[in-house]
Amino acid sequence: VDERELIERVGRLIGSEHVRDDCAVFTAGGATLVASTDMLHETTDFPAGMTDWQIGWMSAAVTLSDIAGMGARPLLLLLATGLDRPERLMGITEGALACCEHYGATLAGGDTDAHSECTIVSTGIGVAEEGHVVRRRGSVPGDLICITGIPGCAQAGLSGYTEHRKALLEPQPGVREGPLLAKAGATAMMDVSDGLVISLYDLLKVNDCGYALRSDKIPEPAGVPPLEALEMALYGGGDFGLLFTCPPDMMPVDGVEATVVGEVIAERKVLVDGEEVERRGYMHGWGG
Amino acid sequence: VDERELIERVGRLIGSEHVRDDCAVFTAGGATLVASTDMLHETTDFPAGMTDWQIGWMSAAVTLSDIAGMGARPLLLLLATGLDRPERLMGITEGALACCEHYGATLAGGDTDAHSECTIVSTGIGVAEEGHVVRRRGSVPGDLICITGIPGCAQAGLSGYTEHRKALLEPQPGVREGPLLAKAGATAMMDVSDGLVISLYDLLKVNDCGYALRSDKIPEPAGVPPLEALEMALYGGGDFGLLFTCPPDMMPVDGVEATVVGEVIAERKVLVDGEEVERRGYMHGWGG
Repeated sequence: VDERELIERVGRLIGSEHVRDDCAVFTAGGATLVASTDMLHETTDFPAGMTDWQIGWMSAAVTLSDIAGMGARPLLLLLATGLDRPERLMGITEGALACCEHYGATLAGGDTDAHSECTIVSTGIGVAEEGHVVRRRGSVPGDLICITGIPGCAQAGLSGYTEHRKALLEPQPGVREGPLLAKAGATAMMDVSDGLVISLYDLLKVNDCGYALRSDKIPEPAGVPPLEALEMALYGGGDFGLLFTCPPDMMPVDGVEATVVGEVIAERKVLVDGEEVERRGYMHGWGG
Repeated sequence: VDERELIERVGRLIGSEHVRDDCAVFTAGGATLVASTDMLHETTDFPAGMTDWQIGWMSAAVTLSDIAGMGARPLLLLLATGLDRPERLMGITEGALACCEHYGATLAGGDTDAHSECTIVSTGIGVAEEGHVVRRRGSVPGDLICITGIPGCAQAGLSGYTEHRKALLEPQPGVREGPLLAKAGATAMMDVSDGLVISLYDLLKVNDCGYALRSDKIPEPAGVPPLEALEMALYGGGDFGLLFTCPPDMMPVDGVEATVVGEVIAERKVLVDGEEVERRGYMHGWGG
């Protein structure tokens, strides 16, 4: 049973609209709000050699990235930490605080506990300034497929390309870009942290169209041999760019560095250079 | 290092106003909102013999209780579950969903993961309908000390008094009572899930007054010998009643069954029948 199957089962129980996007969406006092929770375990989610500060940073970043993926601005973050050694709490909290402060969110508390394996659950709440969120559903044939950042860099860092180690250990979520893309009119959006191709499969599942990438358009991690670099860009996890679709006349968007990497098509498939590709990517377990 | 010490250290880092209450407080779109996250582990937080459904129910209940403790109404809940066996997810989700539906909250998704020990982090968001929350700080000498429910029942259930087993395994948070008490003018409030006396010490820390209980006023779990019953009522954890202070003329409050158990005093101590009592109660680890 992989994670996506489990989530589908839960979706049938609690209503699939609640498990479809990076965040839950709700309203209060006339505001449209989003909320997301992410559970991270030391052995499966944190690459070996991370400092506690980096663990805290990454725990905050994954949730800020989910909020950005809805086109919302983060308001506050809560951190629940299960600790094998209590003294680690300070380093982890300092890293999470640095990430929150960098991106304009408030680290507003949490819970802490003893635990055999360091386990962090970060929960964030954001607000959709424009009054609407961008969901995974919404692509139409003829839209462009675009990404921010360079996919595959985190995977390159994991594979020993030291110039990409910071991308792996201190990911930069698209907090600034997400709301700008929502305002500009992106039709569908999500973060790409599980990998580019598998994220397109996630879009495929909730849209009535398909996605055709062009490999020559996809930016790749520098300093990596071409074939390996493309493999990393298509299937590597751990990057925090945004994947979105939009009408052709939307690009470029002021203040957002993004790359057009393909086109939304009518046929319900995920293609690279016209060939169907397999649904694989990051599914818990670094390197898996 | 106990949990409360760690929380104080984190408070110095992120701002003590963020760790002082049962929930973080924030505003969006003119609404006053609260958010709380709770981490629960199978070995330390769930009494032996609980079903997955009860584990799900309790995970939701602890967070709904935190929201109620601020006088707010719950909106939605997110559940992050680390599972030793993936098939447990359905039972846990069903229990959490039942609790949410019973109390008018939406179970809006979450995250799931493999984990050696079943670990659940429940995060809830609520809204303060009256536009203000009731915090732990706010008691003044002359206020009454009141509680809803009967303290010690969960502890009695844990100690083998079977008639109280349901109080232990399927706790009932004060979702209905919290907002009514906020509206009526409670001056300070929190849930009493760590125990009555230790909760009064939590109030003591953030107020400029003290708390004097009268043991003959405290309701006690039925069917338990008197001395043991008083011990359970004062120090037992796991109950989900609300502890609040209020002006003498506030009680009774329409629709709320509550008991006056003492008085707020100028002297900064926690007293039972005029004698100072030690600061102890539930600190993780059932029976501890």
